[in-house]
Amino acid sequence: MKTPDTLGFANGRYDRAAYFRDQPEELAALARRPDARTFVFCGDVPVIARQGEALDPLFPTRDYPGAGSDQDMIFLGLDSGAPRFAVEIPAQLTEPLNLQEDVVLIDQRSVATQDLFDGATHGAMATAKALMFWHRTHGFCGQCGKPSVVAKAGWQRNCPACGAQHFPRTDPVVIMLAVDGERCLLGRQGRFAPGWYSCLAGFVEPGETIEAAVRREVKEEADIEVGAVDYLFSQPWPFPESLMIGCLAEATSEAITVDTSELEDVRWFSREDVRLMIAGTHPDGLHVPVRMSIASHILNVWANGGGEPARTDWQMATSK
Amino acid sequence: MKTPDTLGFANGRYDRAAYFRDQPEELAALARRPDARTFVFCGDVPVIARQGEALDPLFPTRDYPGAGSDQDMIFLGLDSGAPRFAVEIPAQLTEPLNLQEDVVLIDQRSVATQDLFDGATHGAMATAKALMFWHRTHGFCGQCGKPSVVAKAGWQRNCPACGAQHFPRTDPVVIMLAVDGERCLLGRQGRFAPGWYSCLAGFVEPGETIEAAVRREVKEEADIEVGAVDYLFSQPWPFPESLMIGCLAEATSEAITVDTSELEDVRWFSREDVRLMIAGTHPDGLHVPVRMSIASHILNVWANGGGEPARTDWQMATSK
Repeated sequence: MKTPDTLGFANGRYDRAAYFRDQPEELAALARRPDARTFVFCGDVPVIARQGEALDPLFPTRDYPGAGSDQDMIFLGLDSGAPRFAVEIPAQLTEPLNLQEDVVLIDQRSVATQDLFDGATHGAMATAKALMFWHRTHGFCGQCGKPSVVAKAGWQRNCPACGAQHFPRTDPVVIMLAVDGERCLLGRQGRFAPGWYSCLAGFVEPGETIEAAVRREVKEEADIEVGAVDYLFSQPWPFPESLMIGCLAEATSEAITVDTSELEDVRWFSREDVRLMIAGTHPDGLHVPVRMSIASHILNVWANGGGEPARTDWQMATSK
Repeated sequence: MKTPDTLGFANGRYDRAAYFRDQPEELAALARRPDARTFVFCGDVPVIARQGEALDPLFPTRDYPGAGSDQDMIFLGLDSGAPRFAVEIPAQLTEPLNLQEDVVLIDQRSVATQDLFDGATHGAMATAKALMFWHRTHGFCGQCGKPSVVAKAGWQRNCPACGAQHFPRTDPVVIMLAVDGERCLLGRQGRFAPGWYSCLAGFVEPGETIEAAVRREVKEEADIEVGAVDYLFSQPWPFPESLMIGCLAEATSEAITVDTSELEDVRWFSREDVRLMIAGTHPDGLHVPVRMSIASHILNVWANGGGEPARTDWQMATSK
C-alpha cells in the first residue's frame, strides 16, 4: 500500500547523497554554501527559530544557536539541491535558549503531532534525532570498551583502539491490528491518556520474520492466535530509533487474556467504535492515537478503507 | 504473502516462552529436565553430533562438547514443550573437536543451504547465532565503556557501572526485485561465484520507511528510479544479525549506471532468463542464489508465480 501522506516522519524526501559522506573536503564546501542550513538539537530537543508566528527549524550552518567549534555535523543530504545538516548542542544550553525571544525549543513529538512543517522536514528531523540518539548512547566501542569516534559525516563510528566499525542502529518493531471479522483488538498501556487505545506492538526479535513477530506479540500480550498477516506500510519512529512495520493480522481465536505486565487493558472494538474513535466523537470518550501515528493509519485502513485519518485533538491524546 | 516453507531460517516455530527469561530458578529446572537439549556453537560454528550418516544439532544440556561451568546458556524456548538452549564454547576448541569422530563442525550457512534439519531447527539456530554475535560484539557498554553482563537468559545485557540496559540488535535490510514489465534488475558483487546474479539489497537507514530504502538503494546501486513497492515476505538472516525484507519494486526508468564501489555488474534479465536461472539450466551458465535464500524466492514469485524454487546445486552458488 502506498505510504499515506499524513503518516508522520514517513515522507522524508531528501536526496541523502551518501557519496558525500566520506568526502570531508566536499562536505566542508557544501556547508559553506549560502543555501546550506542545519537543524539544531539542544540535547534531543529541536531548536526552532521564531519570528512572530512563523517557525523555522533551519539555521545557517555557521551561525546557529549554541554554535561551537567541536560539534560534529551530521550530513542529512540535499533538499532540492540545498545542503542540509544537523548538529547537537549541549543540553545545558536549554535555559539560556529559553530566555531568547527568537528561538523556541519544541519537543520532537510535538513538532510532528502538531504537523508544524512539511513532510520532507519531518523526515529529516526524524533522521537526525535517531542518529543523535545512537551517537549519544554509543560513544564507546561495544567490542573493546574504548571511546569511538564519529566518521562518515555522522553515519558511522570507528574505534581507533580495536579497529571496529559501528553503524547506526534501527530497531524493527511490528505494530498490528488483529481483526476478527467486524471487530478488532486494541490495547492500552497504563501510561496512555484516559480513554486512549492503540494497536498492539513489539520489537522483532533475532531469528524472527515480521509475520512471526506479529503472531508472537499478539499471543503474548492478549493470548489471541493469529493466522494470515498482511503488511500495510512502515514508519520511521525516532523515539528513540525504531522502524515501525504496520500490519493487519487475522485473529483466529476470541478469548482475551491480558498480559498485565505490559498492558492495562485489551478489548475487542467494533468497526463503528473505531470510526467514532478516529473521528473523535465516541460517546464513551474513547480515542485512537494522534493522526500522524501509524496506529491511527492502520485503524483508518480497516475502519474507513484508508485515506487521511480525521484530525483529532492531538492535545487530548498526548495529555499524559 | 504467506512465508514460503522453503525460505531459510523463516520457519522457526519454537514457543519462545519469554516469561521464563527473567526466572532463573525456573530456567535451571527446565535445563535439568530429561527432554532439555542445547545447540552448541564453537565460536560461531555449529557443532553437530554425528552417528554414521545421521546428524543431530542437539546435545544434553549438561553433557555437551566443550561443556564448562562459566558458559552462559541462552534460552531459546520450547519445542513442542521440550526446553531448548544454546551455548557458545571457545573457538580454540575447534581443533580438538575436529579430531572427534562423533561430532562435526558445519558452518551455519552450509547447514541451512544443505537443508540438513527441519524448519523449526533452522529457525532456532539462526536465533542463537544472531544472539551470540550480538553478545560477542557487545561485551562493553556503549554508553560508558565498562564491561556489561548477560541478563534475561541471553536476551539482554546490563551495565553494572552505569545501569544501562542493552537489547539484541537486528538490522532491517531491504532486498528487492525492480521490475520493468517483462524484465527485472539483477546485480552481482565481485565476491559472488561466476555467473551468479541476485536482487539488489541494502540496510534501511535511520529516518527511512521500507519503501524509501528500496527506492534509495535501487537508485544508488543502479541509477534506476522506482515507483510502487510491494512487500512480499521477510527472512531472519544471521550473517550476522539482519532481518531481510523482501519486496517487488516497479522500475520507472531504463538506463542503468552501476555503482562500481558496490557491484561488479547490474543488468536487465527477461522472465525466461530468470526461469532458466532458477532451474539451473541457463545456457550461459547464469545462476540465482541458493534455494533457501530470499532472493531466489522473490525471483520465483516474479518468474514462476511463487511456489518452491527448484533445488539448484548449492555448491555451485557457494563455491566462492
